[in-house]
Amino acid sequence: MHDLLIKDALFVTCDQNHKIVYDGIMAVKNGRITALEQSESDAGRQLKAHQTLSVKGRLVMPGLINTHCHAGDSLFRGLVEGLTLESWLGQVWIAEKAILTKETTYLGSVLGLAENLVAGVTTVMDMFWYPNETVRAANDLGMRLSTGGIFFDLPGIGDRLHLNYIKEAETFMATHQESESIFPAILPHGSYTVSPKHLEDGKAISDRYGALFSTHAAETQAEQADILNRYGKSVIRHLQAHDLLGPRSILAHCVHVDTTEIKMMADSGTIVAHNPMSNLKLGSGIAPVSEMLEAGIKITLGTDGAISGNDLDMWLTMRLAASLPKGVMMRADVVTAKQVLHMATLNGAEALGQSKNLGSLEPSKAADFIVLDLNSIHAVPMFDAITHLVYSTSKSDVCDVFVDGKQVVHDGKAIKVNMDQTLENVRTLAPSIKASLE
Amino acid sequence: MHDLLIKDALFVTCDQNHKIVYDGIMAVKNGRITALEQSESDAGRQLKAHQTLSVKGRLVMPGLINTHCHAGDSLFRGLVEGLTLESWLGQVWIAEKAILTKETTYLGSVLGLAENLVAGVTTVMDMFWYPNETVRAANDLGMRLSTGGIFFDLPGIGDRLHLNYIKEAETFMATHQESESIFPAILPHGSYTVSPKHLEDGKAISDRYGALFSTHAAETQAEQADILNRYGKSVIRHLQAHDLLGPRSILAHCVHVDTTEIKMMADSGTIVAHNPMSNLKLGSGIAPVSEMLEAGIKITLGTDGAISGNDLDMWLTMRLAASLPKGVMMRADVVTAKQVLHMATLNGAEALGQSKNLGSLEPSKAADFIVLDLNSIHAVPMFDAITHLVYSTSKSDVCDVFVDGKQVVHDGKAIKVNMDQTLENVRTLAPSIKASLE
Repeated sequence: MHDLLIKDALFVTCDQNHKIVYDGIMAVKNGRITALEQSESDAGRQLKAHQTLSVKGRLVMPGLINTHCHAGDSLFRGLVEGLTLESWLGQVWIAEKAILTKETTYLGSVLGLAENLVAGVTTVMDMFWYPNETVRAANDLGMRLSTGGIFFDLPGIGDRLHLNYIKEAETFMATHQESESIFPAILPHGSYTVSPKHLEDGKAISDRYGALFSTHAAETQAEQADILNRYGKSVIRHLQAHDLLGPRSILAHCVHVDTTEIKMMADSGTIVAHNPMSNLKLGSGIAPVSEMLEAGIKITLGTDGAISGNDLDMWLTMRLAASLPKGVMMRADVVTAKQVLHMATLNGAEALGQSKNLGSLEPSKAADFIVLDLNSIHAVPMFDAITHLVYSTSKSDVCDVFVDGKQVVHDGKAIKVNMDQTLENVRTLAPSIKASLE
Repeated sequence: MHDLLIKDALFVTCDQNHKIVYDGIMAVKNGRITALEQSESDAGRQLKAHQTLSVKGRLVMPGLINTHCHAGDSLFRGLVEGLTLESWLGQVWIAEKAILTKETTYLGSVLGLAENLVAGVTTVMDMFWYPNETVRAANDLGMRLSTGGIFFDLPGIGDRLHLNYIKEAETFMATHQESESIFPAILPHGSYTVSPKHLEDGKAISDRYGALFSTHAAETQAEQADILNRYGKSVIRHLQAHDLLGPRSILAHCVHVDTTEIKMMADSGTIVAHNPMSNLKLGSGIAPVSEMLEAGIKITLGTDGAISGNDLDMWLTMRLAASLPKGVMMRADVVTAKQVLHMATLNGAEALGQSKNLGSLEPSKAADFIVLDLNSIHAVPMFDAITHLVYSTSKSDVCDVFVDGKQVVHDGKAIKVNMDQTLENVRTLAPSIKASLE
């Protein structure tokens, strides 16, 4: 006897072969997918469970994986506009410093993670100042999170020293190393804000635990000039020189990378988290996604924070990842819908070291799945499910979200946290946020 | 006594000065805006009406104006993928030829126009094969439409000759010249599909009626090469040589234009309808929006058809219009949110010769307005209403739409047409559409 059956749906599995099951039935037990069959097959007809959900006319797929986010920064959505990254960061840090406590970080993290969750994102990699608060928010909402100790050499939030950051990162790592919902990582801010020695300190911790390492890299031309000036090398070469590349390294952005650097990242198995909306909005540029794919780099997708891109929409991110290279290269055949759908699902799971558990609908994997309505005007007709998901689906089509077999979003609403109260609390805080830059 | 009061809302008027009325009240009578005041002002308190709608916590703004669409092509959403414009058009025309009758054109037009309407678009300029069917769809839905005779020298839908097109265009023009909801236009397909003589024939009709003239122009590099080869001039120079530029000319796309051509368009008052999503998706390129704005060109926005861009989303269009130039130019200060909001409202009204009636919330203008929910997670907090509309608002935030003072969308649903039946009819037709290219 299974716990749950999801039946009468179109299943887009996002597995290696992009298998689609039309009119399928999926069984879940103890938070795992136990079967995925044709409804009318012998195997499908024999499935029995305590609870059965018929989702006729809907599409079921794995939860999306957002590999670069700063959920807590949703408090500052739209606060700093019209500036490129470097001058923008100056303002962001002033506002963050004035506003962020552990309490407001929790509030912002619920806001940002809930926006992800109701839009179908079940796992987020998040870099922020008080990672324990982000963990608390993710646990309360019922979603998975990769985060961990931040490193930052400038005066940051809470004015911690490098030794504090190391200690916090170590503690976080030890606390969560066995978790199936929190994937601990080391998250130095970037090579322009963290010294090579301190980056290496972080990497050593992640190596000791076989854990993830993620940092901002090669986001802007100004960053390139800065790193070249300080260290005599471009950003990716600088990271390579300090042995920071590799299959457990997730580099966010990589907008400004040359052919040699692309090859360095490909050869070392380094992951690139592509954040197209933020890169456009901050005037950073447009990442060479097609070239990086050609070279064999595993690309994942991120929304970055709402303080740069103004929302946290992985559907928009997919659409831009597929469309921008076509516009830039004036070729409609580069970067396929299948490639982009994998960036947002299976590649994300692989990047987080969770490919056995997450990223596709396959028996034995965790039952992290989302249900999409196909009855909106913009969703009709549908000729190809994968094209549809990348180019026509809107976040508002996501009606139900399950993580580990448990429902966490019903009819577009996060059900484990009082979101009305959360929004009210954010609105109450907004005047102080605004005043922080006045 | 007014007919209707809308009260307790944040009004973004989109007038020349971008006036915002916080906690405002708007009166409507006989389909016109009669007053827009502060709720607590003397003038505001004295307003009385037969019906009062309190929309507390919501934002009210003018209906959006989509100046380039092929609504009927929504039947083919996602059918032809991975091809650049020229090879894509070859497939599109085969599918259109197999499927389009007056009846299916009506069906597709309801589908496409309703997608616009529920997303807050109250006026569409549409180019398609049977304009009378598009008019019927717009009238049934309760929205405004600019359309009219198409011109096309290749064998088109219905195999009409140029003389037929002329006659149909003349009849359309005469029928609708006094209308306040249908704005007649002459719509030759493009300079690569219509001869100079035939373009001039169309222009002569539009001139005789003081009406609009709109065509595709400078969309791709291949089109430029083709026109240069045939006529010894680039597209915009070719149009100028045949006296087709001017303040009643709306050129869709203008992706490939040089400085001289930009000046030609600016000097002649020619309007550019910018379609960023379609231009990316078809590998056409990225239009030089910032350069065109600098030169003083009036830019409006369009979604193009769902067969190219996969949906008809003017919010995405705004966001791309504001963000793409920042990414391409690596400058975050180019193309402001205010400029883009005007592209989607007041500029559209001016382009269609309707600036006295449409495009902003001002007394004496038509009561075409939309009501946006501000309670979605992605909409909180809001520091600046205009930034919010351009970068954070989603089509799903549109709850109510009024045209000419009459409600046509309630709670996100078009209420004057049976949309469930429409979607069912499209689904029934979908297998034949798919088969048309097999």
